[in-house]
Amino acid sequence: MLKLYYAPETCALASHIALEQVGAEYQSIRVNFSKNEEISPEYLGMNPKGRVPALVTDRGVLTETPAILQFICQSYPDAGLAPLDNFFETARMNAFNSYLCSTVHVAHAHRLRGNRWADDPLAIAAMQKKVPQSVGDSFALIESGFRGPWVLGDRYSISDIYLFTLARWLEADGVDPDNFPKVADHRRRMHQDPVVAKIVAAEAAAS
Amino acid sequence: MLKLYYAPETCALASHIALEQVGAEYQSIRVNFSKNEEISPEYLGMNPKGRVPALVTDRGVLTETPAILQFICQSYPDAGLAPLDNFFETARMNAFNSYLCSTVHVAHAHRLRGNRWADDPLAIAAMQKKVPQSVGDSFALIESGFRGPWVLGDRYSISDIYLFTLARWLEADGVDPDNFPKVADHRRRMHQDPVVAKIVAAEAAAS
Repeated sequence: MLKLYYAPETCALASHIALEQVGAEYQSIRVNFSKNEEISPEYLGMNPKGRVPALVTDRGVLTETPAILQFICQSYPDAGLAPLDNFFETARMNAFNSYLCSTVHVAHAHRLRGNRWADDPLAIAAMQKKVPQSVGDSFALIESGFRGPWVLGDRYSISDIYLFTLARWLEADGVDPDNFPKVADHRRRMHQDPVVAKIVAAEAAAS
Repeated sequence: MLKLYYAPETCALASHIALEQVGAEYQSIRVNFSKNEEISPEYLGMNPKGRVPALVTDRGVLTETPAILQFICQSYPDAGLAPLDNFFETARMNAFNSYLCSTVHVAHAHRLRGNRWADDPLAIAAMQKKVPQSVGDSFALIESGFRGPWVLGDRYSISDIYLFTLARWLEADGVDPDNFPKVADHRRRMHQDPVVAKIVAAEAAAS
């Protein structure tokens, strides 16, 4: 059985929702960051990155949200969470997911994880100060290119799950979601999905 | 015909090499950053991100290196640049590429693009100071998990092209490649590939 290592309020939510939406048999295991479990010898032995998500499969451990999401799609093709039969649409989906991980998530991470990129407390404070702008700019780009009703247009995909996951951080990052009405509406609609709401509630209860 | 927009010394080199290795018919177009061409109205009309690479196809424009690389693999499956018939190996490849774009490239970007994440010149200087450590740490993780002779083990893939591209920045980032003998040897072997050497030389000549 698949095992998903996750922590609440992280991007692991996307993999968690995707596993549930495809109807996978899986176990979800909370990694308690407040107890530094992510850097315990046991966890690092499984995932040397010391991060979440990590998906344990019968063939090995996978990390990185875009890779895990595509793996879930390919493992459960009948769930239709990706346009796998169309290279160009798959590439558009991957480009969107890549932007989320390398630009949007990175902008967000400068609020609480500035010590990854500087040691000086004043520099870390300066990074935090710019988060509303850098996160806001990245969502402005998403808003301007948003086709609707879903990220890829008519077709729902893992990009919707991933976008929803990161859009939940907007307020904490100092960005008003109402500046991005299409993204805000998408977030509302995603949260109305019973499967999405179930996993969000389950993670909140575990935290 | 495919059109690749690139700039020398950027991650667009990976897409450039991949297009050449699969034998694609394509045109490469240099975007001159010193003339701010990447933020010209014409360029932004094609790629609102104002970055490279951008690949213009007959179905639309693609951005983001991991997505472009996978699209090239899928469009030219006979070239064998990805284990497309194996979901798990594809996921490992995607996880590696995702790590390169969201962690390695991001660590590197704090040397010259710190203004993306802070405005204070002292903060930007503090970011630059930490680049040797953050880039070094990310390559230490790659080195420790390196199977060889290629990223995926016996099988050559786009992950090798992408790793080579970012490993070329090590010295400029203040990291001694000899700290990572497997990565350094991989870089040497990659550069001995006539196609790789040809594209590296072509980009240098154009710059």
